[in-house]
Amino acid sequence: MMSRLAPRWPAWLFWWRAACAQGVSAQQRTWAGASRIPGPGGPWGATGTSPLVRRGSSSASSGAPEVTLTRERYSARRLPFSVVSEDDLAALERIVPGGVITDPEELEAPNVDWLRTVRGSSKVLLRPRTSQEAAHILRYCHERNLAVSPQGGNTGMVGGSTPVFDEIIVSTALMNQIISFHNVSGVLVCQAGCVLEELSQYVEERGFVMPLDLGAKGSCHIGGNVATNAGGLRFLRYGSLRGTVLGLEVVLADGTILNCLTSLRKDNTGYDLKQLFIGSEGTLGVITAVSILCPPKPSAVNVAFLGCPGFAEVLQTFCTCRGMLGEILSAFEFMDAECMKLVGRHLRLACPVQESPFYVLIETSGSGAGHDAEKLGGFLEQVLGSGLVTDGTLAVDQRRAKMLWALRERITEALSRDGYVYKYDLSLPLDRLYDLVSDLRARLGLHAKHVVGYGHLGDGNLHLNVTAEAFSPSLLGTLEPYVYEWVARQRGSVSAEHGLGFKKKDVLGYSKPPEALQLMRQLKALLDPKGILNPYKTLPTRT
Amino acid sequence: MMSRLAPRWPAWLFWWRAACAQGVSAQQRTWAGASRIPGPGGPWGATGTSPLVRRGSSSASSGAPEVTLTRERYSARRLPFSVVSEDDLAALERIVPGGVITDPEELEAPNVDWLRTVRGSSKVLLRPRTSQEAAHILRYCHERNLAVSPQGGNTGMVGGSTPVFDEIIVSTALMNQIISFHNVSGVLVCQAGCVLEELSQYVEERGFVMPLDLGAKGSCHIGGNVATNAGGLRFLRYGSLRGTVLGLEVVLADGTILNCLTSLRKDNTGYDLKQLFIGSEGTLGVITAVSILCPPKPSAVNVAFLGCPGFAEVLQTFCTCRGMLGEILSAFEFMDAECMKLVGRHLRLACPVQESPFYVLIETSGSGAGHDAEKLGGFLEQVLGSGLVTDGTLAVDQRRAKMLWALRERITEALSRDGYVYKYDLSLPLDRLYDLVSDLRARLGLHAKHVVGYGHLGDGNLHLNVTAEAFSPSLLGTLEPYVYEWVARQRGSVSAEHGLGFKKKDVLGYSKPPEALQLMRQLKALLDPKGILNPYKTLPTRT
Repeated sequence: MMSRLAPRWPAWLFWWRAACAQGVSAQQRTWAGASRIPGPGGPWGATGTSPLVRRGSSSASSGAPEVTLTRERYSARRLPFSVVSEDDLAALERIVPGGVITDPEELEAPNVDWLRTVRGSSKVLLRPRTSQEAAHILRYCHERNLAVSPQGGNTGMVGGSTPVFDEIIVSTALMNQIISFHNVSGVLVCQAGCVLEELSQYVEERGFVMPLDLGAKGSCHIGGNVATNAGGLRFLRYGSLRGTVLGLEVVLADGTILNCLTSLRKDNTGYDLKQLFIGSEGTLGVITAVSILCPPKPSAVNVAFLGCPGFAEVLQTFCTCRGMLGEILSAFEFMDAECMKLVGRHLRLACPVQESPFYVLIETSGSGAGHDAEKLGGFLEQVLGSGLVTDGTLAVDQRRAKMLWALRERITEALSRDGYVYKYDLSLPLDRLYDLVSDLRARLGLHAKHVVGYGHLGDGNLHLNVTAEAFSPSLLGTLEPYVYEWVARQRGSVSAEHGLGFKKKDVLGYSKPPEALQLMRQLKALLDPKGILNPYKTLPTRT
Repeated sequence: MMSRLAPRWPAWLFWWRAACAQGVSAQQRTWAGASRIPGPGGPWGATGTSPLVRRGSSSASSGAPEVTLTRERYSARRLPFSVVSEDDLAALERIVPGGVITDPEELEAPNVDWLRTVRGSSKVLLRPRTSQEAAHILRYCHERNLAVSPQGGNTGMVGGSTPVFDEIIVSTALMNQIISFHNVSGVLVCQAGCVLEELSQYVEERGFVMPLDLGAKGSCHIGGNVATNAGGLRFLRYGSLRGTVLGLEVVLADGTILNCLTSLRKDNTGYDLKQLFIGSEGTLGVITAVSILCPPKPSAVNVAFLGCPGFAEVLQTFCTCRGMLGEILSAFEFMDAECMKLVGRHLRLACPVQESPFYVLIETSGSGAGHDAEKLGGFLEQVLGSGLVTDGTLAVDQRRAKMLWALRERITEALSRDGYVYKYDLSLPLDRLYDLVSDLRARLGLHAKHVVGYGHLGDGNLHLNVTAEAFSPSLLGTLEPYVYEWVARQRGSVSAEHGLGFKKKDVLGYSKPPEALQLMRQLKALLDPKGILNPYKTLPTRT
């Protein structure tokens, strides 16, 4: 439709298909709604406080089967840590008065990941409010050889934030204070338990944005984001947390507080210790505070949603886009037709453009609305004229931009409503990125409900998901190690942004050589000689 | 002058003071000219091959005193490493046939830093061509307990790349091959000894730019850039090497090759080991190859040079600039009047604007020439109209842009011609950035020839330099620890981008707490248990 219309920022760019407005509200960008609302059941949503966990809980309460214990499904073996005694509970109560939770009902949610695929059996959850309290907890656990499972918003995808056995859960939920914000430099310093969306609102009111954004923003904690080195939707523009995190405060396994919480853009005094903890999933230390550089808030943001006839055209659209939009391009996401079908079926979100084999979401963020619109207009004219794009729509205001974003961001939610989800988060060379999806679809045939591909195309990051009625060891056997071997042949990564956690730890070797694995083990032994920090995670099981 | 003229991108923006053309050529952006031209004397310029070292050498040949041996000036104590024997030389010759240099004349230049402030007494220099050769060298040295000083372009500022005693120099100069370049993703993979400027030319011909740029580009090696976590002139736009370096190949102390040379934008499989080596100055491993993400080459680049009446106005100009130029701002550099005086006196570069207390260089890089010019025009109108800027000039072509850049980039060179230079590379809060310069100027009075301040204002990075006729322990005593204590009170960094090397290693404690220092020592012991890698560097002397 669009391609027939006049060039240069014409009226049709503001065209909007009425159907799109059905079934999606502006709030839905954060998967299930507004910010986390602390409720009586605690911040993990045991009684329905977190949108993410609420979904899980509601499915449980509606008769969904209980999640199988991790130790049973994966035949895991408990390591010889101590077991929490009554004396331990009394000692911990002295360290965090009022912050020791042992009520089995309250412990249900933090023992299960929000995807409902892993489940631990922790009997104790601790809620320190300060780094000092967290340090005392770690010192005590270290002395007593008690294992610890650090937990933020519990929104991870790989079972990294839930206990596997009876590890003590140490939650950052009450460490949610902003420490400082500098309104010239944009440096935010805050405790680890601040919720990403709340930080976003805070800095946006001051003319800045958080350098990261992700679907789980309404629940995830900044400390958890850093611990998993979260990528997300702004990676293309603002890069990795390894560049934007300026400083960290970390509690080490023995309770030492390592204060590297500087606010300097540049600091080359010795080894950059904070990097050890970014992406190490709580296995080397517990992040208690974060200093992060927020970029200025762009004054003009545009979101376009386009349909492409094939994956080759998606790639060409990306190249054209990068060339013509340059520095204002802030996101280039893609999804296939299967994704759109699931989003339509489970969430009742309508496709805003003609049905197509592929869809692309492009966001621009810039400082000059007129300039940006002109650039975007030129680009759209080009891709529509050349047939790379067959149909498209452009959001005219923030509400509609959020609706377009919801189509992409809520795929995860739609998938989880489709059944048991086998999730793969892969980095692949751009030109082979979608081949694996087509390949698997043919390989699995009717054994899977759906095989879908979507993700951060601009970063070479594919989210490959397979749904089935329930977990099935035989389907798993057809998928793995096939998927990992496929990725390894392309020299890709078997975990682009989700980390390894519990579920992916044994596939590390597909992306890293033995020498790297050896050095990782040495680092773990150096920083956590007793292995009490988030055991059974990140590093492969010793066989 | 500019402020009197008409608004909106008028003719006066292209005005150029004729005087500026005197005494500077387009080539001079890289301090002393064109790319490194390999000559018979080897790549370190012993016989005049490197522009950087040529300057040093010529000053030596023109009767400048020989550089005092480091062990004498700093009363350093040699650690109990083995001494290279005839048998060792024979064994090393078998490992790198034809790559063992023992000629004292050829060893002169690599024993001295280009600032001519430190001098070692190495008797052997090795030039491996492959990672395997480098690994064999390290394995041999590790077994024999021979200390090693890794060396790239030897352009460092803190004596990190020259031996202190008789360490074997392992040069990356012959490891200068490009391994691959992907012209869609912009990922460059190359050996560590590639010269930055040559890489720049290579990727620019293919529509990309290197994510870093610095004055020493004509001589420095990419491996050395990564080993020192070099900042430089594009940091404001493309961020830290910690984000843009995608992979590294490193030879560990015992000769193990650690291959983390991936080309993926995202990879969260385990700990990010490459970060250990970025900025660790060759003390944890020798970087042998680098994978780095190059951004697309901007199609429009503008450079403006402005005069400001005070430092408060420099800061306000920066804030205005960031707001109005947004995503196209790629550099915001400043220099004080003393800098301009020295650049004029020693290099005969004329000031292109009216004499001012401060000067600012602003670069924009964007994808739309017209849009960028319009944004820049609006900004200049604003700062001239409000009195933040009193005079300015804008480069109309690449040649003139280079001339303006030369004024900023060649300050280091002008300083080194002014006498012995006490160099400080500091991160400070923006609003206190220049106070230390004024403070020191008053404190030193006539004891110093010049006290100057310049640097990467956009990154909060001040280069504070003090010149004197010759090295003087009493002047040093007036400067230190005064400067470091001043910086520590502001919670700044005593080394923003130059690293610690030999000269700054003992001031680490001003920017890092004891717990951090302890962990650094543990990392060193883990990765280099015999301490053979670049000893006497980075970590403080044990007292």
